[in-house]
Amino acid sequence: MASTLIAIVAGVGPGTGASVARKFAAAYPVVLLARKPENYENLAKEINQSGGKAIGISTDISDSASVKNAIDVIKKEFGSDVGAAAAIFNASGGFLRTPFLGLPEDVFKTSIAVSATGGFIFSQATLPLLLKGVELKSAHPPSLIFTGATASVKANAQMASFATGKWALRALSQSLAKEFGPQGVHVSHAIIDGVIDIPRTKEWLKDAGPDAKLSADGIANDYWNLHTQPRTNFTWEIDLRPAVEKW
Amino acid sequence: MASTLIAIVAGVGPGTGASVARKFAAAYPVVLLARKPENYENLAKEINQSGGKAIGISTDISDSASVKNAIDVIKKEFGSDVGAAAAIFNASGGFLRTPFLGLPEDVFKTSIAVSATGGFIFSQATLPLLLKGVELKSAHPPSLIFTGATASVKANAQMASFATGKWALRALSQSLAKEFGPQGVHVSHAIIDGVIDIPRTKEWLKDAGPDAKLSADGIANDYWNLHTQPRTNFTWEIDLRPAVEKW
Amino acid sequence: MASTLIAIVAGVGPGTGASVARKFAAAYPVVLLARKPENYENLAKEINQSGGKAIGISTDISDSASVKNAIDVIKKEFGSDVGAAAAIFNASGGFLRTPFLGLPEDVFKTSIAVSATGGFIFSQATLPLLLKGVELKSAHPPSLIFTGATASVKANAQMASFATGKWALRALSQSLAKEFGPQGVHVSHAIIDGVIDIPRTKEWLKDAGPDAKLSADGIANDYWNLHTQPRTNFTWEIDLRPAVEKW
Amino acid sequence: MASTLIAIVAGVGPGTGASVARKFAAAYPVVLLARKPENYENLAKEINQSGGKAIGISTDISDSASVKNAIDVIKKEFGSDVGAAAAIFNASGGFLRTPFLGLPEDVFKTSIAVSATGGFIFSQATLPLLLKGVELKSAHPPSLIFTGATASVKANAQMASFATGKWALRALSQSLAKEFGPQGVHVSHAIIDGVIDIPRTKEWLKDAGPDAKLSADGIANDYWNLHTQPRTNFTWEIDLRPAVEKW
Repeated sequence: MASTLIAIVAGVGPGTGASVARKFAAAYPVVLLARKPENYENLAKEINQSGGKAIGISTDISDSASVKNAIDVIKKEFGSDVGAAAAIFNASGGFLRTPFLGLPEDVFKTSIAVSATGGFIFSQATLPLLLKGVELKSAHPPSLIFTGATASVKANAQMASFATGKWALRALSQSLAKEFGPQGVHVSHAIIDGVIDIPRTKEWLKDAGPDAKLSADGIANDYWNLHTQPRTNFTWEIDLRPAVEKW
Repeated sequence: MASTLIAIVAGVGPGTGASVARKFAAAYPVVLLARKPENYENLAKEINQSGGKAIGISTDISDSASVKNAIDVIKKEFGSDVGAAAAIFNASGGFLRTPFLGLPEDVFKTSIAVSATGGFIFSQATLPLLLKGVELKSAHPPSLIFTGATASVKANAQMASFATGKWALRALSQSLAKEFGPQGVHVSHAIIDGVIDIPRTKEWLKDAGPDAKLSADGIANDYWNLHTQPRTNFTWEIDLRPAVEKW
Repeated sequence: MASTLIAIVAGVGPGTGASVARKFAAAYPVVLLARKPENYENLAKEINQSGGKAIGISTDISDSASVKNAIDVIKKEFGSDVGAAAAIFNASGGFLRTPFLGLPEDVFKTSIAVSATGGFIFSQATLPLLLKGVELKSAHPPSLIFTGATASVKANAQMASFATGKWALRALSQSLAKEFGPQGVHVSHAIIDGVIDIPRTKEWLKDAGPDAKLSADGIANDYWNLHTQPRTNFTWEIDLRPAVEKW
Repeated sequence: MASTLIAIVAGVGPGTGASVARKFAAAYPVVLLARKPENYENLAKEINQSGGKAIGISTDISDSASVKNAIDVIKKEFGSDVGAAAAIFNASGGFLRTPFLGLPEDVFKTSIAVSATGGFIFSQATLPLLLKGVELKSAHPPSLIFTGATASVKANAQMASFATGKWALRALSQSLAKEFGPQGVHVSHAIIDGVIDIPRTKEWLKDAGPDAKLSADGIANDYWNLHTQPRTNFTWEIDLRPAVEKW
């Protein structure tokens, strides 16, 4: 039996994660990772009902035992010789804009645990599957894509928690891009510089016009474009922002 | 009569320029600018014969009178209410790796004349057409794309000439992205970090494997992907390099 | 009785930390923090015997209880109204150049614990003393200085552990510079881009000439120069490397 | 007769240039370059009357013949075996905040002529003297220092003219730092990120408090600190801004 190529999305919620999952589900079975099942259950159902294939696995991305368990579930489901065509790290945490001296230690540690340690654990767990994807000659180079933010490149006042984790994640992605590019895995980092248009942000930026927020489907499309770049033309980093954004 | 939307490519040669022209010619009449007619004549013929529409105009991009003349020719050909869907600046000059104290003044000035002044003149000439494209509600946001290089972000020893011009061009593109994004024009900058696979580089990197050089058609594809991003999701900058490239 | 102004150095060892402590000891009583007493005992003795004043406190910089204890010891020694003229974060950990798939989780976590969490804990503990230094009108603006590395701005292949922590620390320092600059505290980050000349590196770069390694005393001098900048002229970041270094 | 070591300052005016000249005049005879004699005459007189030595030479920094003439005057004055301990490029031009489509071509070209071409010409003319300074074993490594601005690292909307020149100059300085560091010349770039307190800016930022503007003497002091760094500890780049500056 032929080996399967899957896509794995960590940090599935109502925004980028869901759009990315839908986009990649058109080409690959997708695995949805989130801590809370309510974050992936409906999405998995939707994908499965519309002709795709999706499974959700409750996973704490900052806990290597939990991620190891997810990989075990994946191998049970798709075979022990499963390869990955894409792994997308979309998790984040520890966002709090606050004067530094009032920043709770646990918020700071959450940012680090998700963005830095979580990125590390996710990468160590998925890279063997991505390298397997290279071996299986996936149609497009297996891709490891990290979702960044404005705070990945600018550490503003009162943003020490989120920025610290996001800079760490960007460093991780750059190091991996340099190490695994020559091995055929395409590692990318996307700087999402603006507000994403999701239910939670419905009331934000209402006066800034209809195009003031990033489209999550648009982000998913850009991730797909990164994924389909050939080995000769890898992009490590893109930035994405609404046309009207000040930067 | 309906207004026409065109694509303008400056710096047409056997590599990126030609690939970009072919790619955009599938959607728009294209205008090919180069100093020497032999750089665009065959390409224009090829595009016209395969069902597209192309005209070439001999233009010195660093000379505002020459570029003004090109705009006049464009308006005569496509109507005075012509708009641009895309303008791509792919010109460069003054490349010379040499100890600084032996760098001829005219080489340095050529780099500056093409990359800095040329970028400025091309942008001032095409932005009114791109803004006209916004007005004409082009299917994709009118795009002004600049071709950069490794030397756009790293100024290595003995590379003062080329790097100086390329950093200047990157600054120009960033300032324009911030000013014209809110007006609906998508300004991008692409860092081409590696050798492009063209006839002139045929013998280069032969030992580095079949994927060691950038594909010009791949670059054209990435430019097209930039062009088709919606107003909600503009990328200012991408980097592009072969998977095996050290960076 | 007048309040005292002290300097606190975290991460005292045989290199930068000791040189910085000696330099600042010429102006202020210094507090030396390191996990192992053998890292500060001789240095404290040396400073005390040569007319300065130094105390060492065994401290785990990544543990907020341990750092809180250090602050208690400081207040007991110098008075509860003690202010800080300088706090220098020179700790680091988790350095390991290794293929990513063989990088032990605990090494990665050490890098993060020291550089990210440690930087956070040290800053939350010392900033109140530095703000007290502003209030006490210290002769030079109270300074919080972070020691970075090449890996703070470049995440090379096989360097994911160290680079991730160092990028995080740089983000922290930038956010703090923006928040606390207007409050009178000078926050800086120094990119040490090269090998420091200490006993442990005696055999390194022997063929590269006498000036191929950074002088720790030179670094201390640069930190002092940062410290003595007036409020009108704050530097956030400097890079430091031997003249012969390739970069 | 012993060879002389001088300092050369290009772009002498009432601000940074004058402060730098005074600072370096305490250690070296200084050569003041500016287009208009009224920009250096009083300063030269002041330095000569207070025990230093200064000569002014009317020079168009963007014109290689004019700069060659300045070098001839220098050699006539100080001997053909004169060396330079420092060369400081403080010239700038083409500052105009304006919508891009209204930016006059001559303003853009002035920015480029001064910052890019002027930087090139000044460097080619002074580096032989700086290398001579290395040979003469100057007390501090001969230094070539470039004055940058906020616009050297950020190209804001409507700032295309100034930013383009300043990015070009930064590229030049980086390339020269990499090439001439190993030869013993210390090349630096200073990002002056704020308003400098000079007669022309007297009325600016009056509500922002007494420390809202950079001190020109402070900048001169920082340049001197760069100059006195030993070969083991070279800084390429520093940023400088008032404590209260938003960035």
